[in-house]
Amino acid sequence: MKSLDNIRFVLVGTTHPGNIGAAARAMKTMGLSNLHLVTPKIYPSAEATARASGADDVLAKAVVHESLDDALVGCQQVYGMSARLRHLPVPVVDPREAVTHIQQQGDDAEVAIIFGREHSGLTNEELDRCQHLVNIPANADYSSLNLAAAVQVIAYELKMSFDPTIEAGRIGEKRESINADDLEHLYKHFEDSLITIGFLDPEQPKNLMRRLRRLFNRAELDRNELQILHGILRAAEKHRGE
Amino acid sequence: MKSLDNIRFVLVGTTHPGNIGAAARAMKTMGLSNLHLVTPKIYPSAEATARASGADDVLAKAVVHESLDDALVGCQQVYGMSARLRHLPVPVVDPREAVTHIQQQGDDAEVAIIFGREHSGLTNEELDRCQHLVNIPANADYSSLNLAAAVQVIAYELKMSFDPTIEAGRIGEKRESINADDLEHLYKHFEDSLITIGFLDPEQPKNLMRRLRRLFNRAELDRNELQILHGILRAAEKHRGE
Repeated sequence: MKSLDNIRFVLVGTTHPGNIGAAARAMKTMGLSNLHLVTPKIYPSAEATARASGADDVLAKAVVHESLDDALVGCQQVYGMSARLRHLPVPVVDPREAVTHIQQQGDDAEVAIIFGREHSGLTNEELDRCQHLVNIPANADYSSLNLAAAVQVIAYELKMSFDPTIEAGRIGEKRESINADDLEHLYKHFEDSLITIGFLDPEQPKNLMRRLRRLFNRAELDRNELQILHGILRAAEKHRGE
Repeated sequence: MKSLDNIRFVLVGTTHPGNIGAAARAMKTMGLSNLHLVTPKIYPSAEATARASGADDVLAKAVVHESLDDALVGCQQVYGMSARLRHLPVPVVDPREAVTHIQQQGDDAEVAIIFGREHSGLTNEELDRCQHLVNIPANADYSSLNLAAAVQVIAYELKMSFDPTIEAGRIGEKRESINADDLEHLYKHFEDSLITIGFLDPEQPKNLMRRLRRLFNRAELDRNELQILHGILRAAEKHRGE
């Protein structure tokens, strides 16, 4: 599958409108926008809009259906979230396996992921409509994820699989990289300075320089940091000389 | 690291007590229980308890601190959640990378994961205490995960890494497996039946049997299903014969 646009989240029989809003928000943070609601108890609702907190556009285009069948029209693959033991011979996968499977679908495949009622989940008849059940690994003694939390986990897994871009590239000041030569020059300076200040005995060097190499090789210095270190060494040498 | 018990979640300057409760719930669903609160605006609070919804034990043992330093005592590794651009030369990783890194720590390592304020996140001074920044991949146009949602995502990644057990093993009725012999017997029965009912022309079999083999090889039949199929074939043969 090419895009998150081919995936719809279907909330069945949601009791609390706040959860619908929170689910819309969770979806939008991960770039998902196709929300389908099957017989929500109260909707539309000011509480849903309040909890959506900026994801009103996802709520505004949410489609309300009279039946689960209506919500699944056009879907090739249907996944059902299941928190509890079910006596159904349907394959059960974790969210990561489900998302891998979704990615392997054809480019134009439409996929539905169904989330059940807050307290009772999906009925057996609804689960019969699913080719796969998805179970979020949870504390065996306390597995009750909030509806929006379950939506967040699945949306996050989809995002991690389809577009795991983080801000890493843009975070941090501009760093000028250095070369292996620069590092060798630094280590030479270190060695000289440490001898000068009497910390390194050239007759008994032990492993000191190797340890320093390990440390700074690992640190991925940039040019600015390199200059700071040279500056410190020069200052130390000078101080000793006075 | 051996266990989730060595990981503490540190919420700094949380404004809404409801979010503290929801965070406790999110943690508990994933088997985490060490919650530290640095100068929460309102705490304890009935709203926190209400939103914890059964995770009161996590709230009850939550430790409130006057400073971030106090909350980090004894921690070898400190991770800070960062949603926004930061001009800091600190490595930024996604949650999965962070969790991989945490797992590589020594057995007794103590790890802290710091979550900032709802609206303003962590200050630069607080970020200076982190060896790693963690960024949840998000919609570039709408990256505002709710605090509890961020806690849920990180807790889920930890759970997936430390103990990804799902209910799969226990779901489903008891299924008796079948052998390759059984399948061959089924395909022979299919072939005979389809000839009997006039669907398969033995002079021009084309690929029909191969297609049926593909389908049922993939389906991982159990003995009950096998018997059902034989029954259907027998019924079809009989019907044709009447």
